[in-house]
Amino acid sequence: MDLGEERRPAPNLAARLEQLERRVQELEDERAIYELMASYGPAVDSDSRAEAAQLWVSDGVYDVDVGEWRGQAEIAAMLGGDYHQSSLAAGCSHQVSVSKLTVDGDTAVATGYMQLIVCSGETFELRRQTVQRWELVRTAAGWRIAHRTGRLIDGGPAARRLLARALDA
Amino acid sequence: MDLGEERRPAPNLAARLEQLERRVQELEDERAIYELMASYGPAVDSDSRAEAAQLWVSDGVYDVDVGEWRGQAEIAAMLGGDYHQSSLAAGCSHQVSVSKLTVDGDTAVATGYMQLIVCSGETFELRRQTVQRWELVRTAAGWRIAHRTGRLIDGGPAARRLLARALDA
Amino acid sequence: MDLGEERRPAPNLAARLEQLERRVQELEDERAIYELMASYGPAVDSDSRAEAAQLWVSDGVYDVDVGEWRGQAEIAAMLGGDYHQSSLAAGCSHQVSVSKLTVDGDTAVATGYMQLIVCSGETFELRRQTVQRWELVRTAAGWRIAHRTGRLIDGGPAARRLLARALDA
Repeated sequence: MDLGEERRPAPNLAARLEQLERRVQELEDERAIYELMASYGPAVDSDSRAEAAQLWVSDGVYDVDVGEWRGQAEIAAMLGGDYHQSSLAAGCSHQVSVSKLTVDGDTAVATGYMQLIVCSGETFELRRQTVQRWELVRTAAGWRIAHRTGRLIDGGPAARRLLARALDA
Repeated sequence: MDLGEERRPAPNLAARLEQLERRVQELEDERAIYELMASYGPAVDSDSRAEAAQLWVSDGVYDVDVGEWRGQAEIAAMLGGDYHQSSLAAGCSHQVSVSKLTVDGDTAVATGYMQLIVCSGETFELRRQTVQRWELVRTAAGWRIAHRTGRLIDGGPAARRLLARALDA
Repeated sequence: MDLGEERRPAPNLAARLEQLERRVQELEDERAIYELMASYGPAVDSDSRAEAAQLWVSDGVYDVDVGEWRGQAEIAAMLGGDYHQSSLAAGCSHQVSVSKLTVDGDTAVATGYMQLIVCSGETFELRRQTVQRWELVRTAAGWRIAHRTGRLIDGGPAARRLLARALDA
């Protein structure tokens, strides 16, 4: 042991600084992913189909109990379709919940819920509640969705299985 | 290039530390703003009118589809009015969603949703769903609301426009 | 004042680094607590009783308006009971809201809302809305719930009191 080394703070400081930079990077990644998830509702509920589709990577997948859309063009087309357009005409929100989130380098998985609420005259109807599993990747333009799975919470096993997978991570 | 410079870690470390301090400050700002948004429900749903009004700056504005209140006194008075007091008597919650949030120095904008849920005997009624745009400012006492806009999601253009603005930021 | 001191960055850098480490630690604590709260729904809604119970410390308490359960075994047993199992069979979600959160060293308090939504055929019913107060402790295995209180928002004073307590912190 070189006691002289001990008196030089630089190497120690440099190592601590590097560690702290990694910790801050992870906090920033988590924030960026939350920001991505918080962008989905504003995009689809303002009928901003291109912006919504661009939350995915170009060949990203949106796999829902009612259908599967592969790539940004299919996702945008689905948002232009009857189901979503009639929800929009009535007045709808897609509200993503606080989610369990694990970042692992350049990929991440988040699991939570989404409510689809549709205006029905004097009151508002909770039309769908789903489990959402977001599989994310870091790209040059920031975090994007690679594969997102949504399953209706209707007592069947699909939603439960998605939730249980979140506990393993 | 001065190789000697390279061996002196201080300038480099100092610059990295300064950069990291700015990044941590931004994460803390975002957390503080989330905390502010998470305080609105507990304040109004416990009938803590002064605490609720103080989430705004003294001349802050709360602009909702059903009315506009300017300054803390008007906001507190609105919370003492019939509409909110009858919701409170029945049992209500104002639940702010995960929101899209951009901090820019001493100002910030957050956009998300709010649900107003009111107890109606055996079940609970989703009485209002709104888009919420929070325009925030840093004050000596922390982040406060300068201007907040709420629009009912009823199929009309007002809510959609607020949501679309969040995608530009 | 020793001008020579001024030129030596190390002590200054070391102090700033230490301060920054404490700030990052607090941000990480807040993230970890959000992660814990975001785990409750996925655990109980996938019928993962042991995982759900382990969100509490071994002698942790879950004190709800409809009953009180002390320790992980009682909490797990409650989740195996008729009320929760019939919600699960129908299809349910327990959605924890954005919450007000204060960390103080090795303890923390979070206050927010929870919705219990149950599938009822074609639509979904908001069966319960509660205030949730989470009293948390740092353990060797991470943050855990020491005492959690849930009160139905039905116009009575219990829920309001829990919310008001969150404003003091």
